[in-house]
Amino acid sequence: MADERILEDLRARIAASPFHSGFGLSVEDASEGSVRLGWRAGPEHLNLQGLVHGGVLATLADVAMGLAVRTAVQPGRRHVTIELTIHYVRPASQGDIEVLGHVIRVGSQIGFAEADVLQGDRLLARGSGTYSVTTLPSGNG
Amino acid sequence: MADERILEDLRARIAASPFHSGFGLSVEDASEGSVRLGWRAGPEHLNLQGLVHGGVLATLADVAMGLAVRTAVQPGRRHVTIELTIHYVRPASQGDIEVLGHVIRVGSQIGFAEADVLQGDRLLARGSGTYSVTTLPSGNG
Amino acid sequence: MADERILEDLRARIAASPFHSGFGLSVEDASEGSVRLGWRAGPEHLNLQGLVHGGVLATLADVAMGLAVRTAVQPGRRHVTIELTIHYVRPASQGDIEVLGHVIRVGSQIGFAEADVLQGDRLLARGSGTYSVTTLPSGNG
Amino acid sequence: MADERILEDLRARIAASPFHSGFGLSVEDASEGSVRLGWRAGPEHLNLQGLVHGGVLATLADVAMGLAVRTAVQPGRRHVTIELTIHYVRPASQGDIEVLGHVIRVGSQIGFAEADVLQGDRLLARGSGTYSVTTLPSGNG
Repeated sequence: MADERILEDLRARIAASPFHSGFGLSVEDASEGSVRLGWRAGPEHLNLQGLVHGGVLATLADVAMGLAVRTAVQPGRRHVTIELTIHYVRPASQGDIEVLGHVIRVGSQIGFAEADVLQGDRLLARGSGTYSVTTLPSGNG
Repeated sequence: MADERILEDLRARIAASPFHSGFGLSVEDASEGSVRLGWRAGPEHLNLQGLVHGGVLATLADVAMGLAVRTAVQPGRRHVTIELTIHYVRPASQGDIEVLGHVIRVGSQIGFAEADVLQGDRLLARGSGTYSVTTLPSGNG
Repeated sequence: MADERILEDLRARIAASPFHSGFGLSVEDASEGSVRLGWRAGPEHLNLQGLVHGGVLATLADVAMGLAVRTAVQPGRRHVTIELTIHYVRPASQGDIEVLGHVIRVGSQIGFAEADVLQGDRLLARGSGTYSVTTLPSGNG
Repeated sequence: MADERILEDLRARIAASPFHSGFGLSVEDASEGSVRLGWRAGPEHLNLQGLVHGGVLATLADVAMGLAVRTAVQPGRRHVTIELTIHYVRPASQGDIEVLGHVIRVGSQIGFAEADVLQGDRLLARGSGTYSVTTLPSGNG
């Protein structure tokens, strides 16, 4: 169930970030601790074998997890990715992709999240990430 | 020490892959089991905080490791990424980035590789990856 | 829902393995693709801070995932762990621990699994693992 | 080159920890940011296939990385493992094992380390870990 305030906040963040807005993804749904993103793999995302490059799927997972963590940290605090793991379960081909990100736990200093990258009901990749939550203006360490 | 035949093979692969050629990276050096890539982070790769997005660094690490594995598998065999882990050691800013990928071991079915993502002598991220090596035409499983 | 044949097979394997039998864990439930283990953390598993050592939790996760993969591969095939990732979500203290392992996908060459390590309803750790499935008598590569 | 004060501190910690002392490992060498451990795999550490269980190798890697981080954090601060990744490069058999742990970076809140698990000059496993560094008395998050 979407929370309109959270949705608007995430969409504003994506619009304000050069990388995110250029990547072409949309926030389809969001509530505290979870997000659903939509994205479309085009010919420019395919490798020599005609499959979506793994780095693109890692990016989608990281974005979904980061946004999910964003919904769970208090205003005025920052989070940065400190670790990202992706398991590539099935090859991904051109077309619509859905990414579900959700928080496992966000504490006072560390957050954990996971993501599913899907094409229809086929699980393409699973991601898990670790996030540093901080009040400091910079950095991961 | 570069091996010209390997360098040419990797450059031809990058030129032939829509994703790799669009991503704008160059193979600076390569020998059996290791590669060195050059890439430039522009404004379009920055997130809201003005830092290079983590997904981009993950992509660079995956590309470098995949190419390093490529130099170590026999002709006619394929490799696909099955797992990718990235540790984000320091924030990355706009400018030149270098990526060193090298093979830990490539066996008859499984390969392991690692990558360093650097800005000058600052280590930004370390990646490690697992690859499935196969003679089959498709898939990761 | 338990499958008695699978349960018996896993219990026989644990009894026959010096490491598993010495570690003191029990297979509480199992069906194709998933297992539930019970284990008890004693004073000998605690570190200087009085918490269960992370290596012990990693071991529990690996065992649960390996057994889950075992239930999903065909007879006569072997699987070995090639990669293991653990996220430590909360500190673990002395007492009863439950471990749930389940398969994400087992293909002809590669398998993926995940595990939850729990104390009551508190999630202590999440594990994910990659497995090489083979007919060969030896090795991981 | 060993630092005697660091060596003594680490050995005292291991002696004071029920888990570490029971596990039977020795600190062979240590300096700021790196440690070398010795351990012996006995018959009780073998799985059904006669190989050292992966959880044991993960434990060794985690211990070596944790001790390496210990040498690099200031007195009065604590570190806990928040994430651990292991790649199993070759099967491990009974006998002497050496574990090298070293710090990649320890910042004010987050630390990164890596470990090599070796049998002679054969690399058995590579570990990488993320650590939360804190002044608080408890927990990982």
